[in-house]
Amino acid sequence: MRRFTARILHFFSPNKQLVLQLEHLLGYTPKHLPYYQLALMHRSKIEELAQNNERLEFLGDAILGSIVAEYLFKKYPTQPEGYLTEMRSRIVRRETLNNVALRMGLNKLVQYNQNDRGLSRSHIFGNALEALIGAVYLDQGFSRTRKFILKQVIKPYIDIAMLESTDTNYKNQLLSWAQKNSFVLTFDTLEEKIEGSRKVFTIGVMLDGDLIETGAGYNKKEAGQVAAQKALEKLKVKN
Amino acid sequence: MRRFTARILHFFSPNKQLVLQLEHLLGYTPKHLPYYQLALMHRSKIEELAQNNERLEFLGDAILGSIVAEYLFKKYPTQPEGYLTEMRSRIVRRETLNNVALRMGLNKLVQYNQNDRGLSRSHIFGNALEALIGAVYLDQGFSRTRKFILKQVIKPYIDIAMLESTDTNYKNQLLSWAQKNSFVLTFDTLEEKIEGSRKVFTIGVMLDGDLIETGAGYNKKEAGQVAAQKALEKLKVKN
Repeated sequence: MRRFTARILHFFSPNKQLVLQLEHLLGYTPKHLPYYQLALMHRSKIEELAQNNERLEFLGDAILGSIVAEYLFKKYPTQPEGYLTEMRSRIVRRETLNNVALRMGLNKLVQYNQNDRGLSRSHIFGNALEALIGAVYLDQGFSRTRKFILKQVIKPYIDIAMLESTDTNYKNQLLSWAQKNSFVLTFDTLEEKIEGSRKVFTIGVMLDGDLIETGAGYNKKEAGQVAAQKALEKLKVKN
Repeated sequence: MRRFTARILHFFSPNKQLVLQLEHLLGYTPKHLPYYQLALMHRSKIEELAQNNERLEFLGDAILGSIVAEYLFKKYPTQPEGYLTEMRSRIVRRETLNNVALRMGLNKLVQYNQNDRGLSRSHIFGNALEALIGAVYLDQGFSRTRKFILKQVIKPYIDIAMLESTDTNYKNQLLSWAQKNSFVLTFDTLEEKIEGSRKVFTIGVMLDGDLIETGAGYNKKEAGQVAAQKALEKLKVKN
């Protein structure tokens, strides 16, 4: 009934076209349209912060993070926290979300300055998707937002198996980069200390003998991976 | 009625003491006690990941982040996204949460290896608070978790006004650190370029003439703050 009333109201609105597009995207009829209009307004169109989607993006990013966290927590009941964290960062990373947003057709709905060529290379559609999640939350509450993310975003657009299989062996990644660029790469144990009842190892990544980064962990393998991951970031090596 | 039934059941349980303590802490009677027992079990007591609180901490951290995001979004309707992000990081940072957890008395409930002296200096109680939030979410759902965080955690224990007034002027922080340590600090404009229709500035932080970090922004002030913040992190200067 509520859905019906909302539809009737929107039928007479000048935003009929937008409502139809949103219904298709969201799987329900929006109640409070201004939330969604705000979510679709990029700063390049309106600088005024009350009228663009940056605040909603902040909210939606957090809501998305918690729903993905719960999804992974339940999907992988035997995986450690580090695995869940890594998988979440792969799902919510800018590149993934921007790609999802494009496939959802958000680029046709987002209002932005189309003369600004830099924008098409940035992640404005993924950011708008986060803002849209913020709008869904404000308009419909947590439970509906959860349903929207699981059914309309993750299920059709996120290839979990592919994300699982991406190479997480940071040491190998760093090694192949070093070989390609003719650096001598070594991992040196810099420290072994007792913290409470446990040993903690610190491993350093050395490139041509220079210390690039260090990583700590309860065993050498873990510490080496941490150090390699930090080094990849510092050196801006792409996966 | 459900609360009454839960109480009756717990009255005959060997965990009566724990239930009473949790009721006091949470403001309601837990339904499924094992979630809470798991949340209170530190890895130093049980390594097995299905039996310690690290996975729940991952979940609770995300739920807390989203509830704090919504709280700030509504509390500061006119502040930009950057302000909300900064305020959230102050609320959920390890030191703040650990302090809150101690004042809530979680140190009396968490099971950990008390012979491990390193632990008392770490943030295990703040982490257990996050895990407890994960347990509340699994046991009671989002709405109750939201209420718990707002009424039992933020309202009594988080001094928002104090967190607001903490110095966010990273340039000033860096300057006073440099003076104390007799470094010559300068901020140099390294680049001004047009991205789309907007100018983007890149500012470098120089310490005794060496480039430490760079920051980019739509004006020099913003770019300088970004650069200073990154330099403070790199140099591990404490606020």
